[in-house]
Amino acid sequence: MGAHYDRMIAIRREVSEIHAAVSLMEWDQETYMPRKGGDARSRQLATLSGIAHARFTSDEMGDAIHGAATERLNETERVNLREIAWSFDRARRVPTPLVKAFAETGSKAVEVWREARPANDFATFAPWIARLVDLRKEYAEAVGYAHEPYDALLEDYEPGASTEDIARTFEQLRGPLVDLVQRIQESWIVPRTDFLSRTFPIDDQRRFAVMAAERMGFDAEAGRLDVSPHPFCTTMSVHDVRLTTRYSETMPAQSLFGVIHEAGHGLYEQGFDPEHEGTPAGTAVSLGIHESQSRLWENLIGRSRAFWRFFFPQFVQTFPSQMQDVSEEEFYAAINRVAPSLIRVEADEVTYNLHILLRFEIERDLFKGTLSVNDLPAVWNARMRAYLGLEPPCDRDGVLQDIHWAHGSFGYFPTYTLGNLYAAQFFDAVTAAMPGLLDQIARGELLPLREWLREHIHRLGMTFRAHDLVQHVTGQALSSSSFIAYLQRKFGELYRLNFP
Amino acid sequence: MGAHYDRMIAIRREVSEIHAAVSLMEWDQETYMPRKGGDARSRQLATLSGIAHARFTSDEMGDAIHGAATERLNETERVNLREIAWSFDRARRVPTPLVKAFAETGSKAVEVWREARPANDFATFAPWIARLVDLRKEYAEAVGYAHEPYDALLEDYEPGASTEDIARTFEQLRGPLVDLVQRIQESWIVPRTDFLSRTFPIDDQRRFAVMAAERMGFDAEAGRLDVSPHPFCTTMSVHDVRLTTRYSETMPAQSLFGVIHEAGHGLYEQGFDPEHEGTPAGTAVSLGIHESQSRLWENLIGRSRAFWRFFFPQFVQTFPSQMQDVSEEEFYAAINRVAPSLIRVEADEVTYNLHILLRFEIERDLFKGTLSVNDLPAVWNARMRAYLGLEPPCDRDGVLQDIHWAHGSFGYFPTYTLGNLYAAQFFDAVTAAMPGLLDQIARGELLPLREWLREHIHRLGMTFRAHDLVQHVTGQALSSSSFIAYLQRKFGELYRLNFP
Repeated sequence: MGAHYDRMIAIRREVSEIHAAVSLMEWDQETYMPRKGGDARSRQLATLSGIAHARFTSDEMGDAIHGAATERLNETERVNLREIAWSFDRARRVPTPLVKAFAETGSKAVEVWREARPANDFATFAPWIARLVDLRKEYAEAVGYAHEPYDALLEDYEPGASTEDIARTFEQLRGPLVDLVQRIQESWIVPRTDFLSRTFPIDDQRRFAVMAAERMGFDAEAGRLDVSPHPFCTTMSVHDVRLTTRYSETMPAQSLFGVIHEAGHGLYEQGFDPEHEGTPAGTAVSLGIHESQSRLWENLIGRSRAFWRFFFPQFVQTFPSQMQDVSEEEFYAAINRVAPSLIRVEADEVTYNLHILLRFEIERDLFKGTLSVNDLPAVWNARMRAYLGLEPPCDRDGVLQDIHWAHGSFGYFPTYTLGNLYAAQFFDAVTAAMPGLLDQIARGELLPLREWLREHIHRLGMTFRAHDLVQHVTGQALSSSSFIAYLQRKFGELYRLNFP
Repeated sequence: MGAHYDRMIAIRREVSEIHAAVSLMEWDQETYMPRKGGDARSRQLATLSGIAHARFTSDEMGDAIHGAATERLNETERVNLREIAWSFDRARRVPTPLVKAFAETGSKAVEVWREARPANDFATFAPWIARLVDLRKEYAEAVGYAHEPYDALLEDYEPGASTEDIARTFEQLRGPLVDLVQRIQESWIVPRTDFLSRTFPIDDQRRFAVMAAERMGFDAEAGRLDVSPHPFCTTMSVHDVRLTTRYSETMPAQSLFGVIHEAGHGLYEQGFDPEHEGTPAGTAVSLGIHESQSRLWENLIGRSRAFWRFFFPQFVQTFPSQMQDVSEEEFYAAINRVAPSLIRVEADEVTYNLHILLRFEIERDLFKGTLSVNDLPAVWNARMRAYLGLEPPCDRDGVLQDIHWAHGSFGYFPTYTLGNLYAAQFFDAVTAAMPGLLDQIARGELLPLREWLREHIHRLGMTFRAHDLVQHVTGQALSSSSFIAYLQRKFGELYRLNFP
């Protein structure tokens, strides 16, 4: 540790404190801000983001980084230097006019998308996608990439990831997934789900979800749960992590699994070492690893038999009339029902990943230049038919459904499925390390799992990048086999299917 | 308007946007922030305040100001230049080490005060006051003053004000106030107030208060009402103004008049010209003028017969059982009951100002050097006896009661009474201009008053400084006579006293 390193960290922390203010302003915008406050809020967000960017990419930061590289550093300090230098170099390579053009185009494209989607009007939105793809290509050229431009985009969310690796992994996943979905479709088992659209008072839904999150070990004195149109988790500090959800009286599963999912993110954010707050050593590895935490809790735990062994009686107690004719087994089958559908955010644990594969393949082809924007709807619909056996009757429920492309967030989608793959690999590791884990979960004891995740993943911050972290924690590289095995085991049993 | 002026305004707006983030972080800290979030929040606040200060006092701002002074400017632009240059010059005169020492000492002093007050331990707190007085004297020398160091402190809250002027005005106020309080004390009339400590459900208190604020013209789509330990009003933009209050089931008057008071502040903040957002032309004149708006609504309107002519039936409808044996006249007398008490924040409309006069006189003597910190309790108690006929049994309810001195906020207290004086002068002006005003109020029509205030005060921003604004709006300089006449009229009638 030396003077340059200290200076580098001080600037990084300052930037992180500005980002905390930005996060609070965004949280407030989605939760409590009065309706008319939006215009001023946009200006405030732009100003603060600009200040943070200028500070992080300043010559002073550059000098501190170069100086720190000549100092004796311990292991954690080397992690901080590595990641700060990496982000700094990337950020400095992007010309300011390009940053501005991208922000402005994205902001207008979102407006266009908001009207185009309900109007089912792909033609109006298409030129905006084309413009954003071009701007992202310029960006990729500016920051550089190993093999193909899409690598550069991916690395914004998954530092160190390679498109080729992910494509290979997803390729291995696709066949078994399509096969599994098809066999489930052909199965004579159709779980009843009628009771999941009965009326569940929102106050009771809230109480139950909060109870579950607290059992998971989410520290309610270092966090909150509020309501917003789209659920999210955001962080002001390791001691101030905020979850949101949305409630519908007739969709209790939405808020329940939503809160478990967001609390999974929240446990990651509450699990960093406070000593490293505001530095890479106290920051999430990647979006994929973040998503592994939320999905591990939501799906591998939250939709497991063990979990409901403990929680089902409490659920029945909270909703006695709604659940009076429902057995634990029926409930378990209902929350795990697999059925192809058009909308990604409503998809089940199995089909969800086919929605992602489709998007990843399309994005990659767009950036390779082998797919033109005008062909998007046709390609989308053809793949939906091939993967899920469904064809969207209109673009509103097809290619226009997500906001991501309007934001120019190409490279984001694959992190969702990466999260599922990492989650299955981590879960294999933790069940091997803790043979009694499922019994503990069945007794409602979720803290041992949180502690394991904290010790082996959360506390490490960015010590390892995603591929090294998986190797470090599980002894194996990223692969689809844990996830495929998990799905075949779980859904094979549920739908009475045999797998070799 | 020219390039330098534009640059100056752009920087001023940027600073104002950072301040908006600071305001949101402070609001959140008092309303929704989880308990453990405080440490990180303090660091974030310090970082953002530091950035705003550095930006505002930058050489770039100095150059823009000097350049703007050579450009052709219209009237509004000249106001902006005048006020920005004034604040810039003051801020640049304060050495950074002094800013830091003051912030750190104040922050520690608040901690000491938080323990000293309940422990009744003036001796431990005294050296902190002494240190803060010294630091503020240094500050006064650094920024400069016309006649005495206290001028410099006063001007932080009331730009352009003079200690001598205020002392003279307060001097004229003191005799009539002491006399009025004494005559009320001797009066045989003692209003019943028993019903004001019955149980009023908080939800109903909230509904009633919100209804009153909306009738006043507070735009609920451009603002909010939340709960915090101490009521306040804060502003993120002219379209996002937030009020807070606190509720006690057995103290309905506290939240009701609290909300009317804060909504008075809020109407001022919602009343600026959005075009001038983030510049002096869209900013409050001073704390005294701000307080004139809250107190005009709280006291001259909210505690008037006309107001309750309309609202009393609604209050009875909201609280039928609590109010079943209470007449409108009894209610009016109860909410206007005058009785000397030890605690400023609980004082009534008349005695409140004697609490302020006492503090102003003490502060002025401290900064003149004619009063030593160790003599504070004795002087405090003697003046309480002289002005209100009461002596605090302990310093907790005497000299230790306010947080202001622990913050080093000397010069703040007089703005409360200035607010009362301005309010009475403005009220005389508006009743002269709108002879039907009281009849409108009695019909629950409060918007015409809001419009008059908006047109004559709010929309002007900092066009005039406080003394000029009063002259402009009322045709007269600051004086205590409107306020004295108002008190004698109102309380003379209520307590059957004759005034010459």
